[in-house]
Parts: sequence; structure tokens; C-alpha cells
Amino acid sequence: MRLENRLRLGNSKKVTIMSDAIVKQIEEQGNEVRRLKGDKSSTEDAKNEAIQKLLALKLAYKEATGQDYAAPNARQSKPKKEEKPKEKKQQQEKKPDGKKQTLLGVGTKKDENYSEWYSEVITKAEMIEYYDVSGCYVLRPWSFAVWEAIQAWFDSGIKKLGVKNCYFPMFVSNAALEREKTHIADFAPEVAWVTRAGQSEMAEPIAIRPTSETVMYPSYKKWVQSHRDLPIKLNQWCNVVRWEFKHPTPFLRTREFLWQEGHTAFANPSDAEKEVFQILDLYAGVYNDLLAIPVVKGRKSEKEKFAGGDFTTTVEAYVACNGRGIQGATSHHLGQNFSKMFDISYEDPAKEGERAFAWQNSWGLSTRTIGAMVMIHGDDKGLVLPPRVAAVQVIVVPVGFKTENKESLFDAVDKVTKDLVAGGIKAEHDLRENYNAGWKFNHWELKGVPIRFEVGPNDLAKNQVTAVIRHNGEKRQMSLDGLSEAVKTLLDEIHDAMYQKVLAQRDSHLKTTTCMEEFKKLLDDKCIILSPFCGLPECEEEIKKASTREDGEGAQMGAKTLCIPLEQPKQELPSKCIFPSCSHAAKAFALFGRSY
Amino acid sequence: MRLENRLRLGNSKKVTIMSDAIVKQIEEQGNEVRRLKGDKSSTEDAKNEAIQKLLALKLAYKEATGQDYAAPNARQSKPKKEEKPKEKKQQQEKKPDGKKQTLLGVGTKKDENYSEWYSEVITKAEMIEYYDVSGCYVLRPWSFAVWEAIQAWFDSGIKKLGVKNCYFPMFVSNAALEREKTHIADFAPEVAWVTRAGQSEMAEPIAIRPTSETVMYPSYKKWVQSHRDLPIKLNQWCNVVRWEFKHPTPFLRTREFLWQEGHTAFANPSDAEKEVFQILDLYAGVYNDLLAIPVVKGRKSEKEKFAGGDFTTTVEAYVACNGRGIQGATSHHLGQNFSKMFDISYEDPAKEGERAFAWQNSWGLSTRTIGAMVMIHGDDKGLVLPPRVAAVQVIVVPVGFKTENKESLFDAVDKVTKDLVAGGIKAEHDLRENYNAGWKFNHWELKGVPIRFEVGPNDLAKNQVTAVIRHNGEKRQMSLDGLSEAVKTLLDEIHDAMYQKVLAQRDSHLKTTTCMEEFKKLLDDKCIILSPFCGLPECEEEIKKASTREDGEGAQMGAKTLCIPLEQPKQELPSKCIFPSCSHAAKAFALFGRSY
Repeated sequence: MRLENRLRLGNSKKVTIMSDAIVKQIEEQGNEVRRLKGDKSSTEDAKNEAIQKLLALKLAYKEATGQDYAAPNARQSKPKKEEKPKEKKQQQEKKPDGKKQTLLGVGTKKDENYSEWYSEVITKAEMIEYYDVSGCYVLRPWSFAVWEAIQAWFDSGIKKLGVKNCYFPMFVSNAALEREKTHIADFAPEVAWVTRAGQSEMAEPIAIRPTSETVMYPSYKKWVQSHRDLPIKLNQWCNVVRWEFKHPTPFLRTREFLWQEGHTAFANPSDAEKEVFQILDLYAGVYNDLLAIPVVKGRKSEKEKFAGGDFTTTVEAYVACNGRGIQGATSHHLGQNFSKMFDISYEDPAKEGERAFAWQNSWGLSTRTIGAMVMIHGDDKGLVLPPRVAAVQVIVVPVGFKTENKESLFDAVDKVTKDLVAGGIKAEHDLRENYNAGWKFNHWELKGVPIRFEVGPNDLAKNQVTAVIRHNGEKRQMSLDGLSEAVKTLLDEIHDAMYQKVLAQRDSHLKTTTCMEEFKKLLDDKCIILSPFCGLPECEEEIKKASTREDGEGAQMGAKTLCIPLEQPKQELPSKCIFPSCSHAAKAFALFGRSY
Repeated sequence: MRLENRLRLGNSKKVTIMSDAIVKQIEEQGNEVRRLKGDKSSTEDAKNEAIQKLLALKLAYKEATGQDYAAPNARQSKPKKEEKPKEKKQQQEKKPDGKKQTLLGVGTKKDENYSEWYSEVITKAEMIEYYDVSGCYVLRPWSFAVWEAIQAWFDSGIKKLGVKNCYFPMFVSNAALEREKTHIADFAPEVAWVTRAGQSEMAEPIAIRPTSETVMYPSYKKWVQSHRDLPIKLNQWCNVVRWEFKHPTPFLRTREFLWQEGHTAFANPSDAEKEVFQILDLYAGVYNDLLAIPVVKGRKSEKEKFAGGDFTTTVEAYVACNGRGIQGATSHHLGQNFSKMFDISYEDPAKEGERAFAWQNSWGLSTRTIGAMVMIHGDDKGLVLPPRVAAVQVIVVPVGFKTENKESLFDAVDKVTKDLVAGGIKAEHDLRENYNAGWKFNHWELKGVPIRFEVGPNDLAKNQVTAVIRHNGEKRQMSLDGLSEAVKTLLDEIHDAMYQKVLAQRDSHLKTTTCMEEFKKLLDDKCIILSPFCGLPECEEEIKKASTREDGEGAQMGAKTLCIPLEQPKQELPSKCIFPSCSHAAKAFALFGRSY
């Protein structure tokens, strides 16, 4: 198996490198021939030798590639360039007060073109900067702060479970990468290879981790000598690279992304399986308790599970604007597949002379979470940040001041802000004098800050400030007495309201059917669908095909299973799988949907 | 300039690729010629054509490389393989109590062979696991916890200065990488290049960041439109790759390492310069306050400064066992060099119609810190962890128990441990029954835990435990009343004592001289030396040459400047540079030494 793979990968690489090198030589030799032909002082011998060499090079090219040498234009096809948001001119809008106001907001409505809306929001809200390597993006502080909040929460959760952090190399040798057959089959097409250092070609190309099973498990083999060396519970926060050729989307599909990957090994399967679900609960917590997004916990189907593992569990969220499901994070039980491939084993204390193999899990959560958050909560005004991951929870803006009272008002704004910070709130003020209050309102709404405080002389006179809540636009007066505590309560209230809103949206699009025709209709109505399913990969493929829709607006992808929910519908499971021509019994209700 | 660079890099790159590719073709064609010669059915024409093609390929090889094609053995020289610690058989040692005891400890004495000692300590203390990609190592939880402690402390420090975290891509396009001439000249020989994804060759090779100036500054250009967009203060915690061909050493010289890199931009030079030194103070804090290592703060000489910057500041530590200086972290003022190359500019508010360029800094601290900590504090028993970065500060071991009192003693050990944890101490117990107390003592000494608690029936009867202090072997009884507070005080005491010990070692090897002959002698006596210095790179090169020593034991590297200390010696600066044939005036006392 390994040899076959090496031949497959190895040869095609050599051929390409060779052909590239020969092409350059052919081009240079062609120039040389032309030069000699034009040079009256050159001898016939010199010309002939040059022509002979050119012909030999072309022959070598044909042997290496199986094709005749062709002109450069005919040879190269460049990958499609990704779309960047169009630079729009700042729009002018008539405000109710009759003044013209420069509008910073999003130029595209979410419901009209969610894809363009998304690009606009993430750039204008200063979450993402585009970059000159396709599929790679800059995570600016405004989005990275979300990641830091997730990191802090999840890291503390896994440490309570006894997981320790570590760091394994980013580079994988070909030999290690190819050790697990099923696994590598999944990742090989997307692996980025380092072949050169400085000006030297490497003796062996080295892969960049697409995930670290094959990086870590050779060490696990060394560390496990006895059952006493188990469990091993390690995690790392790192970057991984999957060089996908599909259209990239910031956060959601990127060639480099950040994640955590946990890799654990146990002496018995029940401890391992227990952990799979403990981690899944933490992942659900990231969505429910931090990002205010409801998720369905479930198992992945055979077709969708992690290659090389026994089973995969997942948390699945729903994106209303396009009706798609989105995988939130996955926790895999690898069984003994990897431990057998990598020989993570010890003398079985129960059976003398026999080897026992470790039971393993791996689990990961990535910066994709941030993309899901943007898609699910954002609105036509821009980003809407869930309070518990917001870099700024309260932005304090001075309003209604004149030259004579500016200083005292700014002092008051500063004091309010400092009190909030002292009270444990992430608060900032915006005292910039080159922008008016309206511009600031738009700016911080675009950036999705959960609460805006408007601090003006009238409110101050009443010992209060006006709070404007981002997600629903509600205004309320809040007393300066006990403000921090009241803000904390309000932030929790906002979190709950945001969660409930998304839950209601999701639930109104979560339908159950046993009829394939209804299934297709529901899918086009942006629903995710619970249907009886036999569990077979072939049948899932058929359902996907049957639900793929080609129409004037372009192809609509077919449905796949998002998961088999752990909590099954209360109604009785029909005996038959939903797919009409499937002859197998339904095993469970599966959740189907179009998906990221 | 850019073109020149491209030519220099580009051509030699092409040559290497070409020659490698041709070599493969020559070898294959050689085989083909031999095959045809041995094959009686092959025609003379076929043989001649094959030979002609072989000659053409050899000609192409010569043109590409300037050398005749030579046999593979003569051509290739493989990089020296790194040493892994020899697997030693566990040693038997006669203990004072007369019992034979398996000794886990380090087999090599630090003073006898510090290099082998280092390898043994970092592997046996479970800090490092060796890896099958040369120059890359696994950071196990025991070392990663040190990094996490440093991260938490430094991250909080920079956030107080208004720095925000972010994440920029790991990949750099060639165009961006080559933008700054001086900078790239320093890094190009060590850059790792990705040339293939899956089975496709990339249209353009992509570099992996050796540092992120060229990654980040194109974005800075976009973000700076006005002086109001400054300052920008960003930091990222990430991995970087420098494919060095020198002998790799875990932590100290590795091809991938972890670090933080801060990149800031200001509207005026004084703000930028002020920050350089604020960051330098934080770096000094990491060494002084966390790692218990004294450092000298200073500026790098022209020869040693960061390429492309205006000046570099550094903290330098001293490693007693080999008398070398080690650079601890660097904070660079880039001036306007990068902002001019990358056009980070805005309309000058002071001079209408003119562009003003930003003033920039960059600063970094890497996992090298951990290597310095091991080298400086470790002893013949193994690692010695400074208390503030230790994953475990107190290990609690039950002693002197028999079957009948085991359970109650283990309960007591558990209670002591839990009380310490509740009191904010990183405490763990070792209740393993398959190891005796002596083995555990050795084990936790090897791992460098600052305090060992021995909990036995006799001590417990007196309401006390015995504390054994790792760094000096001192024993003391501690009352169970108010134990956590007493342990906190003790940990601080240990930190101070460790710092003072290293400081005394360092100061006894920190000498001042104005005489080159004495300089060389001091260097061989493992000293670092303060001497008057003109500051010129040529003169520094001469001093290095003059102090390089070749003897029976192999070459001893020459001295270079570690820094020009910010705090200069009290004595008057001599007028002349220390190097006898240097005709220039001394500018300052520089700190010289052999160095990592």
C-alpha cells in the first residue's frame, strides 16, 4: 500500500519537476539557437550542436511527460481567482433628520446576496483582510479576539478533564503521513509539500500537517510501554494547511486555518467513548454558551465520518439565510485503527504474552466557528457579536454636547468607561472629534458591539445613560448606580435573546418527513430535514443526487446527512429508509440538509 | 534592487532545480544506454540515439552548473545527522542505605559534557521527544507548560501597552518576501518553500514565514491612510520556520519554532523608540521575574543587528557551563526602512502635499527561552525548574508507610495536595504503588519540580511535612497550618535564591579588559568580556578571527559582541578600541563573548 502510494505521488512529482526544468532549458536553448542563427560569426558546427541539443531536450520533454513540447501559452492554465468584495463608493443616504450622512454600512442586503454581504461584513467590520496568497486571510484583532475568548473557555474545560497542552512539529515525513491508508486517502489531495529550503532541493519532500494523527502517534508508540502509561491526553492549538481547490471563503474554507486538536489514548474503549461525548458537550458549550448558537449533537454517517476512525460525533448549526447546515466541531472515536497502524500497544495485563492496543480519540474545533457566528447573527447593518466573545461589549459615545460642556462630558464618558472596565466589562469609549455621533453609531453597529451607551448632558442630569442594544435596536435608560452589575445582567439577557432568536429560526426550518418528494421541496424551502435513513453510503449518495437541482440560477447542491441526532424524534421510526428505491430498513432518523 | 535580488536568488534557484532534474534524467538515460547495450535485439540506431541523448543531457548539466557531471558518490554530501542521546542502560548505584536502587538520573555530568548532558536532561525529563524530521522536535507538556506560563505573563504585559493579538498567514508570496532587500538577504538561505499541493505543482512557489515583516506590512499600508490610523500595535503567537543547515539543538536552534512577534507602527520616532524599550523591559521581566535568570540589556552592534532595521535591542544571558552568551529576545526599531519599502504612509499633517512614513518596531521572544532555562539552571540530577514557570510546583510523595497505615496516609497525602491546589499552588501527588519512594524522589528531581513534600506517619503525627528543595537539596519541616501561604513564600524564596546563584556565577565571569591578549585568555576561561569597541563591523570581524582558537579539541568559535550594554561600566571609556590594529576611537564598552 505504501509503495503504491509512493509510486503514485512520487512519480508524478518527479515528472512535473523534470518537465518544468526541461521547459526552461528548452526555452533558453531555443533562444541560443536563434542567437546563433542571427550571428554571422558563428560556425555551422556551433549552430548544429545547439540545434542537436535543442532536439535532445525536446525528446527528453516528451519522454518525461508523454506529450510533445508545446508553446508556453498552450501549456499553462491558472487557477480561478477568488472574488474580493467590490470596492463600493460610500453611499449617501437621506437621514430622517434631513441631514446628509456618509453611510459606512453594508451595501448589500443579507437576504439578497448573502455571499457578497458576508464578504462586505467581514472586511468592513475589520475582521478579515484579504491577502495575496489565495485561500489565506488575515485574522484582524476584531475576529482574533473571538478566537481568544473561545480558546480561554475551551482550554479551561479540557484542562479540567486532565488534558495537557503540547506542540508537535508542523512538518510530516512522507513515511509517517502514509502510514494509515484510509486516513491519507482523504487528505493526500490537499497536502502542501515543502520541497526546497533556501536554494537547495530537499532529499525528500516534507508535508505540512493537514491534521496531526500521523505526526503524533509515532511518539505515542514510544510513550506507551505498559497500561500504566495510559491514558495520554494531549491537545495543541496550532495552524493546519489543507490546500483545497474549491472556492475559498474566509473562516469557512481556507487553506490555512487555526484550530485545536486533541489526541487521547486509553486502555479501554469505554473510557475513550466517554471522553468523545464529554468533548462533544464542550463543543456544544462553545456554540450555546459563548456564540449563542443552538446546535444539534449527533453522529456522522458512514459516508461523512472521519476517515480511519470508528465513529465521528459532531455539533451541527443551521444558517438561516441560505438554509444550510454547518458542521461546528467534531469529536472522533478512532477505535484501534491508528493504534494498530502505529503500534501503540503494551503487554496485555489480562492475557499474558499478548499485546493490547490503545483506544484513541481525536477532536477538533477551528476558526470556522467565527464564520458561522458571522453568518448566523449578522444583519443588514453588519456584524452582531454575541456578548461573551465580543472584544468590546460596551462602546461609550458622547452625544449632544457643545463646545462649552465638551470637557465635562468627555470626563463623564471616561469615568463611566473606567467604572465598567473596573467592574469586569469590556468597555471602550469613542472620543474621536473628527467623527460625529451618527458616524460612530453606524461604525460600532457595523462592528457588532452588543451595547452602545449614549452619554449626553440630559441623561447625565438624571444620573443615567441611554443603552442601545445592537441585535434588536432597543433603547433603554440605565441608572449610573450599580451600572456594571446591571450591564452584566443585560449582557446575559442579550446572549439569551440572541440564542432564542436563532433557535426559533432554526426550529421553524427543522422539518420531519418520510416522503422523498416532500424532502426535495423542503430542501428548496431552506429547511433541514429529519428523515428515516438506512445509514448506507451508497444510499446517501443516491439521496444527494436525487436532491441536486439544476435550474436557471445554477446548480444547487444535493443534501447530505448533517448527522444522526443523538436525541431522536419522539415519533416512531418508520421501517423503511426515505429513499424510495432503497430496500434497507431505516436505522434512525438522520438530519439532512444542504451544507457547508 | 529588486531585480538584482531576483536575479541572484532566482538564477541560482533555477540552477539547482535544473541540475537535480537533469541528474535524474542522466541517471535514467544511463540505465537506458546500459540496457540497450545489453539487449541484443536493439538496433545500432537506437543505441546511438540513446547515447547522443545522454551526451546532450551531460552537456546541459555542465551548462547549468558549470561543472562536469560526476558520479553520485562524488556529488552528494549529506548533512551531518544530529546526535540523539545514546540509550544508556539503566545504571546500578550503591545507595548509602546499602540497597541497590535503579537510578533514573542523568548519566552524564554537566561539567564533563554539557551537550550530551543537555540532550539527556530534556528527553529524560520529558520536555522533548525527538522527531523524524531533522531539526524539528516535539514540545511535550512538561516544556510546553513553561511556554504557557511565559505566554500568559507577557501577553498580559503587552495588552496593558495597548497591543492586540491577531493572526497573519504563514505563507508569503515571493513578491512580498523580496520587497525589502537587506532583510531578505538575511533570511533567504533559510526559507522553506512550498512548491506542490496534492499532486499539482504550484504556479509560483510560496515561502513559509521566517518572520512576518513582509507578511504584515502590505496590510499596514492599506490600513494607514491618515495619521489618525496610527499607532498600529499588533502581536501574534505563532510558529516560524528557518531551515538552518547548522547542527540543530532542541529549543536553541530548531527549524520550526514558536514565538511571539510584535509589529507596531507610529506617527513619530520618539513614540516608537519609547516602545522598543518598554518591550525590552518586558523581555527582561520574562528572564528575571519568571525564569530566574539575570540578563544584560543592550543594543546590538551594527554587525549583529536585525537586517533592515535601524537598531536592535536585546537581553543577553550567560550560560556558565560553556561560558557562552545567549541572546534572550530582541526588540527592534525599524525606523522608516520598511515603511518606505512597503509605502506605509499618509499625508503629512505638518507639510501639505507631502507623504509621511510610519516609524516601526518589531520584537520577538521564542521557545529558545526554555533551552536557556534548562542550560542555566539544570544540574547533574537533571532539570531545575524556576517555580513561576513549573507545571508542578510541589510534588507530594507518601513515605514510610506499611500496609496497615497505607490508606490513611494516602488520604492525608490527597488532602495536603488538594489544600495546596485550593490555595493556588500547582501541586500534584504521586501515589503510584509500583514505584518506591526513592525512585519517585529521583524521578521528580530529574523533572526539576521545585519542592518535594515527603508525607510520612512521623511527620503527620507532628502536624507537619518534610519539604525538600530541588535547587539546593535543603530539607525543612513545614507545619500543616497555613501551609499554602508558607509554600507561596517558599516558592518566592526559591526563585530569589536561584536568581542570585546564577547572578553570582555570571558576575564572576563578567570581566573588563582593554588588552586583546587578556581578552583571549578570559574568553578561554569561559568569561564574557566588557571592552572598548569602535562599533565597526570590519573590526568586529577581526576580533572574532583573532579570538578563534584551533586546538586538539577542535575549533573554538571566536567572540562576537553580545551587545553594547545600556548601562555602561562606571570606569572611564578608553579612547582606543580594544583591537590593536584598529585606528578608530572606542564608542562604548561592548560585551563580547562566545555565543549561541
